[in-house]
Amino acid sequence: MALADVRPNLPTNGTNGTESAAHRITTGPISGSRKVYGGTESGLKVPFRRIELSNGEHLDVYDTSGPYTDEDATIDVHSGLHRTRAGWTDGREHRTQLGWAKAGVITREMEFIAAREGVSPEFVRDEVAAGRAVIPANRCHPESEPMIIGKNFLVKVNANIGNSAVTSSVEEEVEKMVWATRWGADTVMDLSTGKRIHETRERILRNSPVPIGTVPIYQALEKVGGDPAALTWEIYRDTVVEQCEQGVDYMTVHAGVLLRYVPLTTHRVTGIVSRGGSIMAAWCLAHHRESFLYTHFSELCEILRAYDVTFSLGDGLRPGSIADANDRAQFAELETLGELTHIARAHDVQVMIEGPGHVPMHKIAENVRLEEELCGEAPFYTLGPLTTDVAPAYDHITSGIGAAVIAQAGTAMLCYVTPKEHLGLPDRDDVKTGVITYKIAAHAADLAKGHPRAQERDDALSRARFEFRWHDQFNLALDPDTARAYHDETLPAEPAKTAHFCSMCGPKFCSMKITQDIRAFAEERGLTTVEAIEEGMREKSAEFADGGSRVYLPIAD
Amino acid sequence: MALADVRPNLPTNGTNGTESAAHRITTGPISGSRKVYGGTESGLKVPFRRIELSNGEHLDVYDTSGPYTDEDATIDVHSGLHRTRAGWTDGREHRTQLGWAKAGVITREMEFIAAREGVSPEFVRDEVAAGRAVIPANRCHPESEPMIIGKNFLVKVNANIGNSAVTSSVEEEVEKMVWATRWGADTVMDLSTGKRIHETRERILRNSPVPIGTVPIYQALEKVGGDPAALTWEIYRDTVVEQCEQGVDYMTVHAGVLLRYVPLTTHRVTGIVSRGGSIMAAWCLAHHRESFLYTHFSELCEILRAYDVTFSLGDGLRPGSIADANDRAQFAELETLGELTHIARAHDVQVMIEGPGHVPMHKIAENVRLEEELCGEAPFYTLGPLTTDVAPAYDHITSGIGAAVIAQAGTAMLCYVTPKEHLGLPDRDDVKTGVITYKIAAHAADLAKGHPRAQERDDALSRARFEFRWHDQFNLALDPDTARAYHDETLPAEPAKTAHFCSMCGPKFCSMKITQDIRAFAEERGLTTVEAIEEGMREKSAEFADGGSRVYLPIAD
Repeated sequence: MALADVRPNLPTNGTNGTESAAHRITTGPISGSRKVYGGTESGLKVPFRRIELSNGEHLDVYDTSGPYTDEDATIDVHSGLHRTRAGWTDGREHRTQLGWAKAGVITREMEFIAAREGVSPEFVRDEVAAGRAVIPANRCHPESEPMIIGKNFLVKVNANIGNSAVTSSVEEEVEKMVWATRWGADTVMDLSTGKRIHETRERILRNSPVPIGTVPIYQALEKVGGDPAALTWEIYRDTVVEQCEQGVDYMTVHAGVLLRYVPLTTHRVTGIVSRGGSIMAAWCLAHHRESFLYTHFSELCEILRAYDVTFSLGDGLRPGSIADANDRAQFAELETLGELTHIARAHDVQVMIEGPGHVPMHKIAENVRLEEELCGEAPFYTLGPLTTDVAPAYDHITSGIGAAVIAQAGTAMLCYVTPKEHLGLPDRDDVKTGVITYKIAAHAADLAKGHPRAQERDDALSRARFEFRWHDQFNLALDPDTARAYHDETLPAEPAKTAHFCSMCGPKFCSMKITQDIRAFAEERGLTTVEAIEEGMREKSAEFADGGSRVYLPIAD
Repeated sequence: MALADVRPNLPTNGTNGTESAAHRITTGPISGSRKVYGGTESGLKVPFRRIELSNGEHLDVYDTSGPYTDEDATIDVHSGLHRTRAGWTDGREHRTQLGWAKAGVITREMEFIAAREGVSPEFVRDEVAAGRAVIPANRCHPESEPMIIGKNFLVKVNANIGNSAVTSSVEEEVEKMVWATRWGADTVMDLSTGKRIHETRERILRNSPVPIGTVPIYQALEKVGGDPAALTWEIYRDTVVEQCEQGVDYMTVHAGVLLRYVPLTTHRVTGIVSRGGSIMAAWCLAHHRESFLYTHFSELCEILRAYDVTFSLGDGLRPGSIADANDRAQFAELETLGELTHIARAHDVQVMIEGPGHVPMHKIAENVRLEEELCGEAPFYTLGPLTTDVAPAYDHITSGIGAAVIAQAGTAMLCYVTPKEHLGLPDRDDVKTGVITYKIAAHAADLAKGHPRAQERDDALSRARFEFRWHDQFNLALDPDTARAYHDETLPAEPAKTAHFCSMCGPKFCSMKITQDIRAFAEERGLTTVEAIEEGMREKSAEFADGGSRVYLPIAD
């Protein structure tokens, strides 16, 4: 996918987890948690991350990290992950997940997903059948753990990786994927270019527990020496088949960039900003013919159906600036994507739709509304969008705002943006910052959409905060390591982690402590209604004054 | 104000601007810009920051940084800033800005603000008269540059500072304020505690070009040795007078925490999280009497009117977690704040209303709607809100999302949150990150609300991006230094700053370059309509193919 157009160039010295000296892959559980497996009726093992709390409770959370965080797993990137789904596809080769769903059948992938999301298998099937959700699971990628992308499920996050101009090793590429999924990336797009593109993708696929997406036009362009006019349907088709055979789970196809739309971009402030979009615009322009992706779309559907690869219909004409948001070029292409969605579905091929880009907040909802209307509620997969152009170096934040807003409105998956967007290549820290920022946006939207289990984690963390269980606060955080480090900068000693105060107000005064006094008083007396509590407060008043009106803890230092 | 409850403890080694060895104050313009002054009809000098562009154009932007970024200004923190407004108040001592506005008079502050915001003086006056906007400008703080807080003006940002437990020097405290306003803080709250509270505030006020806010209950509490039950109306009143005399421009008063509301918090997940709120709850509880802030509110109005100090009615019962958002305690207090708003206005005292806190996205709009309804559209001043509790160490982002959303809905000023919120004391970098994050949220909301001039900066930056004017991109950014540094990590050499490509796609391929080719073609031929352009494309097609179909620049490295 051309969404973020970035190719991370990560250093390999990990700062979290354990790195195998031989493979330099980050393994081991995230601080304060361990891998557990839930079961399904037919015995499928569904992974969760269990956060153990100091009060004896625990919270199981959705886990994207695969076997890398399982202390009992043996990792060897040269042999690849266990082919868990290898047996699942027996006898199902002739149909896609969409095909089975339409036929009323619940596949093992759907059963697995139901347990993972906490919904019924029937619900998963019905959402897939309606085209409102997709399960990107190429039959040739049996190492992946099934997941679903749809507005009625948890909002998902994609991270882009890809080898840089300087040749990087197989282990480095795998590590990028492992690092992104460790922090919560639900899918990874491999945007590699260059000579070792096939081999790199092979190693990523064989070691990835999450679906892998690609933009086949990038590799096709490499095959013709970088000249878009030299591209042909045949070269593109062969590239798609090659990637399907390897196990790519979803592919960005910019089939909506039509010849007649190219002139619509000439008055824009930032023209065409999608790499795939501009490749196809250049091809159309050079030949003055309609895009071969459009004219051969049905053949493409047949290929993707054979492997159950999901379309991610690319928005090659997405806006690259606030000024260009929601313009004629963008929505003209969206109409065409809608037309293509219906063709793909007629072939039983799953479809999601890529979205912008740069959009001011008041124009975000319109994008979702139109996408759902034109594309039959196919899952929307958006890059941010950035809500302003004025903050390069902070575009994870400008876009995190837009991501939360568009996800609340119904976007199913968010493509992350790192702080280096528009400026340079993200390093390891940037990738983590990008993923965490987008997990925040996704989770904020899950809460806003009323996902039944989303608030459990907020409540658990807030209870820990109120009860001064500092270690539990850290461990329940999206990034326990950074939360702990920030706390330790001010109050490093271990006693501070059990102290009934924090560094903001200090030991001398703490609002939460007062509330605890009030609550303890009410509970001791079995006061449960507001009236009873108020009545009891009169007593408390006297007692409180007798005790010297001290509501503070002793000064500790 | 108790909004953020943080006391930054900033190191003094500046990384930007020039630090005077004697004073350790960051001075000098932000990279790529210089201070200019616009004029008004009556000759007032209104500051702007002029960003000079390499194409000969420039963009003047709103500037909060005062004389510190003026190369011609002499800074001496011991003598303080020039008392610009000293002459302005002559003959106006008997009325507040609200009083004059109601009487139909345009004050010099209103004239200054009109030039600063790009609106008419009459509009400023009418918004103040309606109570929809406030001008926090104590007559005893003549060093300040007038600014306005209201939903029909640019969204403003507040930064909290305050000395830490370890004694810090006068210069350090002034530097915290200078640093925050350098990056765009529109007001600063001094949340200092401890022994030197009066002296610290004095130095901040004498050197501050922006309005200063405080929470007088903090100092009053110091006067009674930290025991809330020992507080009295008289001690509080004297503290307020002391601070009014010094020049504090607005004061947080938690007068809505009524005795009967305290029991409403006992079933909360996080009880009372406001320091001021819990002080008053403890007082009410200890005495079983109504809050003296509430019972003496009219007297308080008379004091604030005498100096034209603005009320910031505090939300002492704001939610401290997602679970507690929009509950009975919160909205009961808001009703009381509405009642107090009308009392204050009857005394011609300006009022704004503080808001939450922790609120999931779908419950944000209700906060603004109720606040406007209950408090007669008094400017809303919110802390974030945080849209999820699960990301300590990233709460500038969890709250930046909420801040953008609530500002779009009508909040007039946003109190920043730093990455250290809930965990520790913000350092210099945290303060900058907090301010920039909130400038993003405010600007995103300005765009969404259709502020007539907000998009100028986005468009200027996007045009610079499209035309590969790298230095202009950096200089137009909210944080030019970081944008430049990120770019230089990948492509450090000066030629890369004029290169027609960036490090994301590299020199071999660039979508913006293709668009420029398309546009140049259209412009050369004077093609202005889409049809004409499409017609022209046919020619271009042939020409393009003749030229070898190359749309790339030569490979540079």
